[in-house]
Amino acid sequence: MLYLDVHFFSNLLFLSFFILEIQSSDLIDKPNVILILADDLGFGDLSSYGHPTQEVGAIDQLAAEGIRFTQWYSPSSLCSPSRAAMLTGRLPVRLGVYGDLQVFLHGSQNGLPKEEVTIPEALKRHGYKTGMTGKWHLGINEFEANDGRHLPVHHGFDFVGYNLPFTNHWLCDDTGIHRTYSTPSLCFLYYNTTIVQQPIKLQELTSSLVLDAKAFIHENKDDPFFLYFSLNNVHDAMFAGNKFKGKSKRGIYGDCVNDMHWAVGEVIDTLKQLRLEKKTLVLFLSDHGPHTELGNEGGITGPFRGNKGTSWEGGYRVPAIAWWPGMIKPGQTSNAVISSLDLYPTIINIINGNISNNLLYDGVNVKNAILENADIGIRMLFYYCDDRLTAVRYGSYKVHLYTFGEYDASVYNVGGPKHGIPQNNYYHCLDCYDDCVKGHNPPIMFNIDIDPSELYPLDINTHADVLEKVFEELQKHKETLIVKPALLDTWIKSLVPCCNPPYCICDKTNQNLQSCHLRQ
Amino acid sequence: MLYLDVHFFSNLLFLSFFILEIQSSDLIDKPNVILILADDLGFGDLSSYGHPTQEVGAIDQLAAEGIRFTQWYSPSSLCSPSRAAMLTGRLPVRLGVYGDLQVFLHGSQNGLPKEEVTIPEALKRHGYKTGMTGKWHLGINEFEANDGRHLPVHHGFDFVGYNLPFTNHWLCDDTGIHRTYSTPSLCFLYYNTTIVQQPIKLQELTSSLVLDAKAFIHENKDDPFFLYFSLNNVHDAMFAGNKFKGKSKRGIYGDCVNDMHWAVGEVIDTLKQLRLEKKTLVLFLSDHGPHTELGNEGGITGPFRGNKGTSWEGGYRVPAIAWWPGMIKPGQTSNAVISSLDLYPTIINIINGNISNNLLYDGVNVKNAILENADIGIRMLFYYCDDRLTAVRYGSYKVHLYTFGEYDASVYNVGGPKHGIPQNNYYHCLDCYDDCVKGHNPPIMFNIDIDPSELYPLDINTHADVLEKVFEELQKHKETLIVKPALLDTWIKSLVPCCNPPYCICDKTNQNLQSCHLRQ
Repeated sequence: MLYLDVHFFSNLLFLSFFILEIQSSDLIDKPNVILILADDLGFGDLSSYGHPTQEVGAIDQLAAEGIRFTQWYSPSSLCSPSRAAMLTGRLPVRLGVYGDLQVFLHGSQNGLPKEEVTIPEALKRHGYKTGMTGKWHLGINEFEANDGRHLPVHHGFDFVGYNLPFTNHWLCDDTGIHRTYSTPSLCFLYYNTTIVQQPIKLQELTSSLVLDAKAFIHENKDDPFFLYFSLNNVHDAMFAGNKFKGKSKRGIYGDCVNDMHWAVGEVIDTLKQLRLEKKTLVLFLSDHGPHTELGNEGGITGPFRGNKGTSWEGGYRVPAIAWWPGMIKPGQTSNAVISSLDLYPTIINIINGNISNNLLYDGVNVKNAILENADIGIRMLFYYCDDRLTAVRYGSYKVHLYTFGEYDASVYNVGGPKHGIPQNNYYHCLDCYDDCVKGHNPPIMFNIDIDPSELYPLDINTHADVLEKVFEELQKHKETLIVKPALLDTWIKSLVPCCNPPYCICDKTNQNLQSCHLRQ
Repeated sequence: MLYLDVHFFSNLLFLSFFILEIQSSDLIDKPNVILILADDLGFGDLSSYGHPTQEVGAIDQLAAEGIRFTQWYSPSSLCSPSRAAMLTGRLPVRLGVYGDLQVFLHGSQNGLPKEEVTIPEALKRHGYKTGMTGKWHLGINEFEANDGRHLPVHHGFDFVGYNLPFTNHWLCDDTGIHRTYSTPSLCFLYYNTTIVQQPIKLQELTSSLVLDAKAFIHENKDDPFFLYFSLNNVHDAMFAGNKFKGKSKRGIYGDCVNDMHWAVGEVIDTLKQLRLEKKTLVLFLSDHGPHTELGNEGGITGPFRGNKGTSWEGGYRVPAIAWWPGMIKPGQTSNAVISSLDLYPTIINIINGNISNNLLYDGVNVKNAILENADIGIRMLFYYCDDRLTAVRYGSYKVHLYTFGEYDASVYNVGGPKHGIPQNNYYHCLDCYDDCVKGHNPPIMFNIDIDPSELYPLDINTHADVLEKVFEELQKHKETLIVKPALLDTWIKSLVPCCNPPYCICDKTNQNLQSCHLRQ
């Protein structure tokens, strides 16, 4: 018996040595990639990023088992430009994803330009199966209210499950928190290119997205795949699933974060059940900073100033975690300066692919920072609001050409949130050409490695050399910049989605849609 | 050969099972306890608590291998009252450790009252060897300039190594950062009860404290021991050891945190070398919030409002980690509401001791929260400034009777820090009876589980029941409160320490003091 035990344990040991060996990168030349994007999640909103009462969940577990980034940047501090740039590796101004409206709206005529190459399009060329479910926000219709010509299926996704082409959750509230009825024209859910629920029932959404994600992974377990799992949490945090609502110590925002933890946990469990975890890179990040004007229904930025819609670090710095058992060592923290713009070249590199077009990319390959926790040296990042360059990060320095007026929570009872419950879905300073955006000549400059809260401007005179270098690099950047015409300017009422004109009220989500997952 | 390997591995496995078995708590009835206290370290200052550029170090490793607390409170937001309360388990007002001067100064006549029982005094009764090195701040002399009647050796410590009875690092700066000479009367280092360096060379201090701590552990490796390792980092962060100075991405404050990481790592390594780690509980915490008025030489509070000297959460909420391999599961986070006041009853309980006096304790036994990550239910905490009750925490609620005016970093060039480099060692609002402390009737109330940044006051009328309960509990508290006369009121010039009057300049640290460690 003892002898048997010895053999049993020794076999286990040798088996684990063998497993360790086959983990080495060269053998996984086409790893799966899952990109999980949170919506409006702030840098300070997770337990692993310092929130004092947010419950620990699956995303924190990814951090404990993988690498957590503390200087990861969104490409923009608003949804549409940030997502467009993340999926293409190119700044929003190059794509034309900027303009007066700031994001794609329900009646927008435009979408992410077809000639731009997205991550899934690039991966399809390398034999990947591609899928997405969740928030899109890169355009809906072009010529007619239901043509869906800008929807994700036209941008490289083989499978598109439940998806929200646009979000205005506030006006979709029918729970009584702020409103008892929702506005159908602003609240619609698609399945691929079909509107299946109008108005949308947001509290059921996470479960549906999870079903999509799990079905896609199951369907493609034998092929290399890319899944874009684009959560609607925690945008306007009011809609946690029933399992989570009213449970978090932190209130409704915490409920929504826990809803999201659950969703991520379900995806990870699916990978483990199918024994795919060692050949799957999972990336979790937020699209940009939190909407703090929503008080306790908005997130927090941790140590950072500003928020969504501004060029302060609170608008751009996002939680970001990479997980890949056997390939990424557990429990690491990186403060390499990384942008979501880097995902395109990095993912292509990680799958041992190549970029086969002549487009100019703003992102760089940061594979070594993600897999090896390598430093990446001095980095230059550009903060654009609309087509206005508002700030630049260069190494440890941040140079503000324009700064944004900041929301003052002490005015909570003057049009803002009352007792932490917002009265209005508003932005203190959103328009990039508004009076609350103030120009600075000379610029204001911080060392944000030392002063991450951007509190103590440096003396411009004693840092003239840095400023000179920044302007020199900026000049080079401008020379490469072919700005496409603004796409976020047009809005046509006749393009607003409607499932059954003129009523725009329907719910087809019970029509055996779950079996669609398996038929895709 | 293969056969040998099998035996080797299987023996290893059985050995590790055996080790797991003897870890169970009952066998360790007299564990060692090491209490490591940081000075002025803010909640947001460590990587594991969300700082974006602070390097990862030994303290973060303790968190990864142990339990990290997110709602741990200091008993006061200033040094002397906080430390007095931590070591006795009793609120500063009960001890008399309050008064106009706010802390014990170099000419203070008083100290921690002798009749109060400290943790080391209690542990000595249970057979423990007790030692301390580092910052004391609970009194120096009583009748003469060098009688040392309030020093730690008179409060239960068998061994007292290098110690600072008082800190005013700013005026001890001789590095040229702010001053090129230090003021000897304010800058002295003791070894037990003897002044050994005046003015103190702060940049050498951490190494000396580490030598003391290691020597004490070595000396007492076969007996149960209690070590109070009271670091001077990161008070007025200007004095990192040469090995760390100028190295941190975060600047001088980061250097000092790394100096501290190193010190903690040395202690942990010593435990491991002596195979004591499984019978030693290590606690790491800060004495209170950071001195943010010092700009980049002060710490940050993370998501919290306020700072050292105020009753906002930033003054009271501290990083706190417990580590005990085999007894505390790795990688845990707790948001139980705990106070450093709890250390006295908790440590006595953990060593299976008993409290043999009739004193009234404000701390409670939180052994299960520390060892088992248990919840501890609704908790009431009192925030005193001097003898003025300024706020109360009750469950999720915080009720402010008085609030403190807040430092505004934007006035950095009006007497405050300039470009992040402080011009003056000042406090925006320190005096508890000053105009910048504002009374509130009715009180201001927050749900700080939901709103940790204390931004959105609750409606008092709709929370009248909570307020009623708070006042009811407050009344009970007041009935138990015998306020001792203020000890922080007297200052006598003739008591100011001086190693060789009238010069007060000496350095005996090279006089073979290291061998003293082993002779103790």
